[in-house]
Amino acid sequence: MAKLCENGICTPKGFQASGIHCGIRKNRTKKDLALIYSEVPCNAAATYTLNKVKGAPIAVTKQHLQDGKAQAIICNSGNANTCNANGVEIATQMCALCADALQLASEDIIVASTGVIGEPLSIDPFATHMEELVTKLSYEGGSDACEGIMTTDTFKKEFAVSFLLDGKECHIGGMAKGSGMIHPNMATMLAFLTSDVAISSEMLDEVVHEVVNDTFNMVSVDGDTSTNDMLCMLANGLAGNEVIQEKDAAYAVFKDALMDICTEISRHIAKDGEGASKLLTCQVVHGNDTMTAKKVAKSVITSSLFKAAMFGKDANWGRILCAIGYCDAQFDINCIDVTLQSAYGSMPVCVNGAGCGFDEERAVKLLSEDEIIIFIDMKQGDAKATAWGCDLTYDYVKINGDYRT
Amino acid sequence: MAKLCENGICTPKGFQASGIHCGIRKNRTKKDLALIYSEVPCNAAATYTLNKVKGAPIAVTKQHLQDGKAQAIICNSGNANTCNANGVEIATQMCALCADALQLASEDIIVASTGVIGEPLSIDPFATHMEELVTKLSYEGGSDACEGIMTTDTFKKEFAVSFLLDGKECHIGGMAKGSGMIHPNMATMLAFLTSDVAISSEMLDEVVHEVVNDTFNMVSVDGDTSTNDMLCMLANGLAGNEVIQEKDAAYAVFKDALMDICTEISRHIAKDGEGASKLLTCQVVHGNDTMTAKKVAKSVITSSLFKAAMFGKDANWGRILCAIGYCDAQFDINCIDVTLQSAYGSMPVCVNGAGCGFDEERAVKLLSEDEIIIFIDMKQGDAKATAWGCDLTYDYVKINGDYRT
Repeated sequence: MAKLCENGICTPKGFQASGIHCGIRKNRTKKDLALIYSEVPCNAAATYTLNKVKGAPIAVTKQHLQDGKAQAIICNSGNANTCNANGVEIATQMCALCADALQLASEDIIVASTGVIGEPLSIDPFATHMEELVTKLSYEGGSDACEGIMTTDTFKKEFAVSFLLDGKECHIGGMAKGSGMIHPNMATMLAFLTSDVAISSEMLDEVVHEVVNDTFNMVSVDGDTSTNDMLCMLANGLAGNEVIQEKDAAYAVFKDALMDICTEISRHIAKDGEGASKLLTCQVVHGNDTMTAKKVAKSVITSSLFKAAMFGKDANWGRILCAIGYCDAQFDINCIDVTLQSAYGSMPVCVNGAGCGFDEERAVKLLSEDEIIIFIDMKQGDAKATAWGCDLTYDYVKINGDYRT
Repeated sequence: MAKLCENGICTPKGFQASGIHCGIRKNRTKKDLALIYSEVPCNAAATYTLNKVKGAPIAVTKQHLQDGKAQAIICNSGNANTCNANGVEIATQMCALCADALQLASEDIIVASTGVIGEPLSIDPFATHMEELVTKLSYEGGSDACEGIMTTDTFKKEFAVSFLLDGKECHIGGMAKGSGMIHPNMATMLAFLTSDVAISSEMLDEVVHEVVNDTFNMVSVDGDTSTNDMLCMLANGLAGNEVIQEKDAAYAVFKDALMDICTEISRHIAKDGEGASKLLTCQVVHGNDTMTAKKVAKSVITSSLFKAAMFGKDANWGRILCAIGYCDAQFDINCIDVTLQSAYGSMPVCVNGAGCGFDEERAVKLLSEDEIIIFIDMKQGDAKATAWGCDLTYDYVKINGDYRT
């Protein structure tokens, strides 16, 4: 594993960031606008939601990333700029204002928005606060930027890792918002990654897609695939390594480091799912093939009944088997073993598809921990997969029964 | 529409039923065993869950229905007889005991179970109570039988319709259990239908599958497809109509009547979804094709975020559009209009894929009713579909956080 280090998106060389309150959110103590800036041009790659309803910023960002280059990312919270008549116009103006202030071309700005769908977004808060946002850019601004994109998140998700390439110390930094409407498909929620690694835009695009499939796309909070999911990565090359241009050893090192940080962010997005009291990690081993292992893992952490049982510390393993059984893949259900694990200990609950009896009191203690692992041995191949989710709680209902007010 | 009439499964000629407490459930005031009996042999058809984990009774019933004939249905609640080492043996013994008491062949008995998955089911309560169950058979026993299959249901679902074929008065009766783990695939929860119509077993099988696809398979309470879903219909021919042997006018009349009663049962299963406070009906019109219309309707009523918003009386139509957008079908999202309706009135919230502005106070009043219709005009074809669901409430979490204790 790459070395986890302090800070987030500003850990790689040459990246600055800022986050401010510009007035989109009514609560003045909450930041609602973030900026990430690289001092030199970057190769850039992104993945986007597969929802047919797409936020206007996604259309604009896709256009700006056609050349695989970018230098800054602007992102607001409090309004998703989606299903608005003039959404593309507003997103384009956000980029233009930001480009002016940074003395860049509009095409080098990536734009993203998160928040309520379908409410008009005025350009005014951006126009009146762009100078402040740019003035506040600093190497210590990562946390402010991270705060600026939070919605119902209860803690910041920012991480950084370091590793060596050609003897040069390289870094990847990342931040994300998660919480609700989390069931990524291809891309995910909002996540922004920075790196000082030198890598071609083709290889950057390749590695981002590979890693996203095993990390962000394996998270589910509520089964709802957002309209504004986007993951974007900037790599500015300032680490001084030899440019990665093919899938060689350096690519593998970079991919491992990216996998580590994306895994960490994904786990924390699940842990901070709306209303969540527990992180649920489903580890599948010995599956027939990777797709099957992934489907099984994701089916379990997506089941509302299983999620509610985990909230209630109820070792209702029948619901795990039920969720495995309805997932869309072919395998022999009668081979499957299920073991529950937590910091308290480990407990087999199902062997060869049938209950194996267990101590209910011990089960309650095991499930009282705040991180639960559901370990599934399919005993029919070599494939494995991990998915992350959270329990279904009263608070999820509370938060989403009255999100807009 | 066929005429709704009193009573349920005993309305058709020649059907008797009973329901008792035999000791599977600890609470002695709750019935846990039901029997439906036809005085003469019936043609029979069934649909089953597609979950790879299947209750043992399904294996036994499938075998007994190979000849398309049956004469009685026995069903217990309190234990699903699923993922037990000796499940098939127990289900087979249940049929044998029942056949003995009724003086029928075991192959003419249909068996079903519902309740907790993975706990051993003893044959003893059946052995000691079979005589009582058979003795209590009566033309007034439909409601007792209906009670015998309830789990977390809060009210009985039993209906009957009458219609004319060849000048003869014909009937269909039905009862079902619903509540949780409701997201049928091919078959659904448990539903038993009786009829005195004369129809070949081939045509009965055909009409059951046709109707189930538009009714039970369009219901979702929590997205979890049960391991024990089963719908079974018995037709004993005592109405005296000419036997339906092909898809003629009589088949159409029978299909319409069956559609009416299955629609009514489906609506009530959604309305009584675990913890539900509201019935949500999503009507899609002018879809490109039926499959697309169905997918759109089902995606909306399945979205946890939308369901929580309905509980909170929050007209958060962005979540409706989001759920339409991530469903797996091809269409133009920018054509779509969404209107919310209830007994209070009607209110367009989205026109051509964008918000159209509405009075929030009126919206709250409209959404305070206990039946809400989400009317979606896709404006791109002639297909239509309806799906039924319920809101996501604190009580759903409560019920499922501690189901087994």
